Amino acid sequence: MAKEKGLTPQSQDFNEWYNEVIQRAELVDYGPVRGTMVIRPYGFGLWENIQRALDDMFKATGHTNAYFPLFIPMSFFQKEAEHVEGFAPELAVVTHAGGEELEEPLAVRPTSETIIGHMWAKWVRTYRDLPQLLNQWGNVVRWELRTKPFLRTSEFLWQEGHTAHATQAEAEAEVRQMLGVYAKMSREWAAVPVWEGVKTESEKFAGAVYTTTIEAMMRDGKALQSGTSHYLGTNFAKAFDIQFQDRDQQNKYVHTTSWGLSTRMVGAVIMTHGDDKGLILPPRIAPVQVVIVPIYKSDTREQVMPAVERLAADLKAAGVRVVLDDRDQYSPGFKFNEWELKGVPLRLEIGPRDVEAGTAVLASRLGGKETVQLAEVVGQIPHKLEAFQAALYQRALEFRDSHTWEVDSFEEFKEKVEQGFVKAFHCGDKECEKQIKAETTATTRCIPFDEPEAHGSCVRCGKPSAYGKRILFAKAY
Amino acid sequence: MAKEKGLTPQSQDFNEWYNEVIQRAELVDYGPVRGTMVIRPYGFGLWENIQRALDDMFKATGHTNAYFPLFIPMSFFQKEAEHVEGFAPELAVVTHAGGEELEEPLAVRPTSETIIGHMWAKWVRTYRDLPQLLNQWGNVVRWELRTKPFLRTSEFLWQEGHTAHATQAEAEAEVRQMLGVYAKMSREWAAVPVWEGVKTESEKFAGAVYTTTIEAMMRDGKALQSGTSHYLGTNFAKAFDIQFQDRDQQNKYVHTTSWGLSTRMVGAVIMTHGDDKGLILPPRIAPVQVVIVPIYKSDTREQVMPAVERLAADLKAAGVRVVLDDRDQYSPGFKFNEWELKGVPLRLEIGPRDVEAGTAVLASRLGGKETVQLAEVVGQIPHKLEAFQAALYQRALEFRDSHTWEVDSFEEFKEKVEQGFVKAFHCGDKECEKQIKAETTATTRCIPFDEPEAHGSCVRCGKPSAYGKRILFAKAY
Repeated sequence: MAKEKGLTPQSQDFNEWYNEVIQRAELVDYGPVRGTMVIRPYGFGLWENIQRALDDMFKATGHTNAYFPLFIPMSFFQKEAEHVEGFAPELAVVTHAGGEELEEPLAVRPTSETIIGHMWAKWVRTYRDLPQLLNQWGNVVRWELRTKPFLRTSEFLWQEGHTAHATQAEAEAEVRQMLGVYAKMSREWAAVPVWEGVKTESEKFAGAVYTTTIEAMMRDGKALQSGTSHYLGTNFAKAFDIQFQDRDQQNKYVHTTSWGLSTRMVGAVIMTHGDDKGLILPPRIAPVQVVIVPIYKSDTREQVMPAVERLAADLKAAGVRVVLDDRDQYSPGFKFNEWELKGVPLRLEIGPRDVEAGTAVLASRLGGKETVQLAEVVGQIPHKLEAFQAALYQRALEFRDSHTWEVDSFEEFKEKVEQGFVKAFHCGDKECEKQIKAETTATTRCIPFDEPEAHGSCVRCGKPSAYGKRILFAKAY
Repeated sequence: MAKEKGLTPQSQDFNEWYNEVIQRAELVDYGPVRGTMVIRPYGFGLWENIQRALDDMFKATGHTNAYFPLFIPMSFFQKEAEHVEGFAPELAVVTHAGGEELEEPLAVRPTSETIIGHMWAKWVRTYRDLPQLLNQWGNVVRWELRTKPFLRTSEFLWQEGHTAHATQAEAEAEVRQMLGVYAKMSREWAAVPVWEGVKTESEKFAGAVYTTTIEAMMRDGKALQSGTSHYLGTNFAKAFDIQFQDRDQQNKYVHTTSWGLSTRMVGAVIMTHGDDKGLILPPRIAPVQVVIVPIYKSDTREQVMPAVERLAADLKAAGVRVVLDDRDQYSPGFKFNEWELKGVPLRLEIGPRDVEAGTAVLASRLGGKETVQLAEVVGQIPHKLEAFQAALYQRALEFRDSHTWEVDSFEEFKEKVEQGFVKAFHCGDKECEKQIKAETTATTRCIPFDEPEAHGSCVRCGKPSAYGKRILFAKAY
């Protein structure tokens, strides 16, 4: 519910704006256990629409859903050295169940490479059992110290894709294909522009050969890693002994991949599009695309309501997610504020004179009002929603591009990285990367696939650049 | 994969038949942790189709999805006396997280009444905030001693609906409405006939005022409780202090309900329809509705494949879930066995002579073969699938009705309850119910809504009947 008081302006305190808007728009609330969140219907509606878009793309690329247990024997994590180092500190551990102490403690899954690897070792016998193309929708737990709803919580919802292939080439193609699916979902559904690229060694997934990522820019200039796709090589195949007999009769290890996208994407949508009035939601994933606010006094109610009810029914029949806000206890102005806070793309206002004239006022959450003919508006709305979607993406793209700089000196790096993204040369040395983080809190976000070949000196230490192109730095969530 | 050896016949050992069929049909596998299951793609496909049917019905009745945390403070369970008694012995407990011992141990949710009650206490202020109509899809953990995939596992997937209302009448109407949704899903999608009724006091949900249930009969005559809907009264409202200011300015406790249906329903489908050849799946939820098996030798392959590929594409375009089994390494006979094991409703066989004649052989998993015209079959398949669905339900209904008896003596009770369901009078005394269970292992399944009024003497102790009608007894999973 909208409160009397406005939101803290983004320019004053972006963090506070975020904390206020997610609660007031009823996206989320804090759970009773530290670091947990309750996803309320309006926030879950966003996630459901993201899920549907992704699930359709997963299936179109040949994947099927499955479900693996939440509890994983602690010993499984010991089998892959980097994996245990990365995840052991964040595990939640079940030690008692059914009133007794367990013989072996159980980890609550932080990710499922180990348990899926264990099952593949049983299921995969020959090349005919490959590829394995699985996806799982579910919850995972990572005990994080600093939490923030949607961005980093002790428990979160996500999908984790896991695939096993006969060859490295096929596995690597899968890694890129699924990163492409994430980029498409982000751009075309969430209207969030992203860079696609490879993580540096220090930023890769614990247990991966390499990690690819989509990186988005929030309106405070900070980066949000929004989805990752990993090539795991034969690391997990060796740890769990997943071998197959190939066409040439030889026993070989499979090459595996994993890829995940989480409720974080909801955070990306909020922080990419929102303004001082509240959320602005992309129509394709907005739980409510159009709100109708009837405007009447007690003596004109009977005149207005039949017209708006018919309009709501017609829009619904046309496949538009519409709400008719017929609450008597609130004024139109109150309702306008509330639906602006909730980021509904389009609003239709209809009063007694509109009904007489056969018109309505159409207001866009991106600004602007126009008078539309009631007889035509149902046919126009789908196009207007698509135009809104495109404008929102364009606006985000322009914001991102105007907050991205190529820099060649560390002084400029430090200045610009306070405002957005920086493209710079880097020597590839982990220690140098660490030093940059220590001095600026900025990290490498990725080595972008699309960045043209170029060579230069490391922006901090001056040694020759290691990646054959500029790489992306930013402060990150 | 089909093995050389057939399944153990149901009549020989139903339990063993079940254990074999679920694994060979690749519905499920055993997880590494005791009592857990891995739901494989074919099994998960069934569950996804059940989910979609239910989710549509939930939304059509005004409910929205939300997500509440997996971890619940142990202290929450103490707040409702019956609830803690019922669930405490089955809890899995997280005692360590992030490398440290927690101050308060956390229960992994066995069900979410407590944590949702906690949040409602914060969200619900006035009658305008009611009703709360929420549903959650997710996993829960109950540490069971004897487990069986789909029927009873340490972790399972389900949906749990939770609603809060201003009045008892409205809450009770919700309880019946949602039981009706379960019954409709069971009958019309799963083709599983069910009795709807109220549980006796000894069999109700821990914390409920009363529990309503749908009860199905498996092919061994045993009952499977397949979905429950509970009226919780103000029990949880009082435990979590969920009060609202009503229209009359008075503060009142809300009346809550909860209702759940789980992956158990997959078990119901397997055990209601399967036969000695394997599964028989209802078309509306079958992951594969039609399989096409091309029949060729090496010199006729080129003649057959284009025709079956076109047919598969046409069926897919018509919305049919179809698989073209073009695996060269297996014989048609092997494929027939495998798809029969997997319970695919319809099979199309096409050889070179069929292609020439423009025909195919259509075989039904319920028996019978016919020759169909290739030019017409795509248009016919949807009707044939609906007819299959209806026949499957009819077959299950006849089986159930022929295995249900009205009995009036305990001798007859003991005899008949070995073969199916028994309708009998009962005195309503908990001790008498316990005695029946001790002597026969049968329990009361429900007091059926549709059973006509009747009066008689308790089938065991001879005291007057308590329910005004016969009630249902059976051995149960």
